[in-house]
Amino acid sequence: MKATAKAHTNIALIKYWGKRDEALILPTNNSLSLTLDGFYTTTTVEFREELTQDIFYLNDECISGIPYTRVSQFLDLIRDIAKKPNLFAQVKSTNHVPTAAGFASSASGFAALASAGSQAIGLTLNDQELSRLTRRGSGSACRSIYGGFAEWDKGEKEDGSDSFAVPIAPQDYWDIRVAAVVLHADMKKVSSRVGMKRTVDTSPFFKGWVDSIPQDLKQIKSGISERDFEKVGSVAEANCLKMHATTLGANPPFTYWHDTTFTVMQHVQMLRKKGIPAYFTIDAGPNVKVLYLPENEEQIKQELESIPGVTDVILSKSGQGITYI
Amino acid sequence: MKATAKAHTNIALIKYWGKRDEALILPTNNSLSLTLDGFYTTTTVEFREELTQDIFYLNDECISGIPYTRVSQFLDLIRDIAKKPNLFAQVKSTNHVPTAAGFASSASGFAALASAGSQAIGLTLNDQELSRLTRRGSGSACRSIYGGFAEWDKGEKEDGSDSFAVPIAPQDYWDIRVAAVVLHADMKKVSSRVGMKRTVDTSPFFKGWVDSIPQDLKQIKSGISERDFEKVGSVAEANCLKMHATTLGANPPFTYWHDTTFTVMQHVQMLRKKGIPAYFTIDAGPNVKVLYLPENEEQIKQELESIPGVTDVILSKSGQGITYI
Repeated sequence: MKATAKAHTNIALIKYWGKRDEALILPTNNSLSLTLDGFYTTTTVEFREELTQDIFYLNDECISGIPYTRVSQFLDLIRDIAKKPNLFAQVKSTNHVPTAAGFASSASGFAALASAGSQAIGLTLNDQELSRLTRRGSGSACRSIYGGFAEWDKGEKEDGSDSFAVPIAPQDYWDIRVAAVVLHADMKKVSSRVGMKRTVDTSPFFKGWVDSIPQDLKQIKSGISERDFEKVGSVAEANCLKMHATTLGANPPFTYWHDTTFTVMQHVQMLRKKGIPAYFTIDAGPNVKVLYLPENEEQIKQELESIPGVTDVILSKSGQGITYI
Repeated sequence: MKATAKAHTNIALIKYWGKRDEALILPTNNSLSLTLDGFYTTTTVEFREELTQDIFYLNDECISGIPYTRVSQFLDLIRDIAKKPNLFAQVKSTNHVPTAAGFASSASGFAALASAGSQAIGLTLNDQELSRLTRRGSGSACRSIYGGFAEWDKGEKEDGSDSFAVPIAPQDYWDIRVAAVVLHADMKKVSSRVGMKRTVDTSPFFKGWVDSIPQDLKQIKSGISERDFEKVGSVAEANCLKMHATTLGANPPFTYWHDTTFTVMQHVQMLRKKGIPAYFTIDAGPNVKVLYLPENEEQIKQELESIPGVTDVILSKSGQGITYI
């Protein structure tokens, strides 16, 4: 009744931005990501007959409140599938995701929890079933089941049974790298959940965003299959700009960017003019992630560190899918 | 056969962004502006029988090339209306629009040229006829016929006969002011004409932009009629953000913003948190214009000048319509 799993976070190159069902976490568009080896969560789940409620330790600290509730409600889903409604668990998680890096630890966190939890309770889920379960904890986490490039199919069904991620290339298909450019450690003003909902509800650009995704996906998948870095990078950068443009049309308008975010974006575009292939992508926060190739690693790090306002640059390679320890 | 007219530039609070007819300069949406007294053009047009071609002086310099052609082709329209196809003119213009301020001198320039030119050749045009004629030289110029607030009706007809500006308040209705925050004197990378066309042709957000305009117009006009500065300012700021968001969705994506543009935007929003009512708007360039009320003038100037990267802050009041000298 005990299992340990390790899951990595992922960076979306085609963004998940908008839900069609808030409760089931069903998206309005397909998304596509690269799993990253630099940032991961290791989670041990042990179901024990004597427990009368779940216990959750994160980085050796006993957790209560909202994070506890999210974990415990997720374990309810596992208990439901296993038909063991009264079996509680002790969960011990360790996050190797620097909070300041601006990666949501929820992606690696829920992927590790779903994997360890389902195995500990005795379920045998295939990858698609595991991805679908993981989605219920955190949408983007469903892509972290796989290493390398993965696509989350939004699905069509109301019950979400066809909404899960699938790998779109072998795990070690292509050595693309990502530099996380750290700017600010302050809290987001608008959470991604709230920002996404406000955009869906009020932005006149939301329909255009959703309608433009199939073409972006087609382009980036052809770029991946051809190992065409310029194509992959330019589609990812354009898709990120579109996602952030939708928030400028919301009512009231908002942005996740700071002025330094903009400085880094300009710098990356300037690097390209100097002949260094580099492309940015930005999630629902101020930090910038830069895609680059291994041969440019040293120069990329140096250039990004030289930008005023940049406090750290953390490099990562393409990462593995779920592993059980 | 000689007349002199003075016309002021204007700042759009609801932006003109997108043409439905490139040749006739017919827009896809209504726009609304405030004419500004700080920036103007004075133009003298003299038709002379002995001339065999037009002559154009700008700031005492004899002009040829594209600017000359635009002026001469505009005079062709006046000659057509007056049925005097072989009567040429000497045009002398003086621009009191600091190039660095990021205001297009084409608005005041073509408004002054249309007024002086049509009067010099003996035409008696009413304001709507004059506005319609002016539109053919430069779209936004058609709003500069009037002082204070003016709305350019996009019209529906293919020949453009119903596309002209009208005043929406008496000339000295409300003392709202504008600070032009000057950041860079370098040339635009993407001209407004080219940027507008690329956005219309490729941005998935263009339809959302156009569809959202009637609501913005309704809101800002109710704000103007109530003299509700917060309402007018917040609608103008949101409309500007929407316009610029459309360019982020274009293919390839582009932006008129620099990082300092973003810094000024953040600073203005911070001023509001400190209780100073101020709102920004930005045209197709990096500079920022800040709307404020007379009682905050000193503080606004001081605050804006203190932002790193700001090279000048030029203040302006609401301006007059066309005057003949």
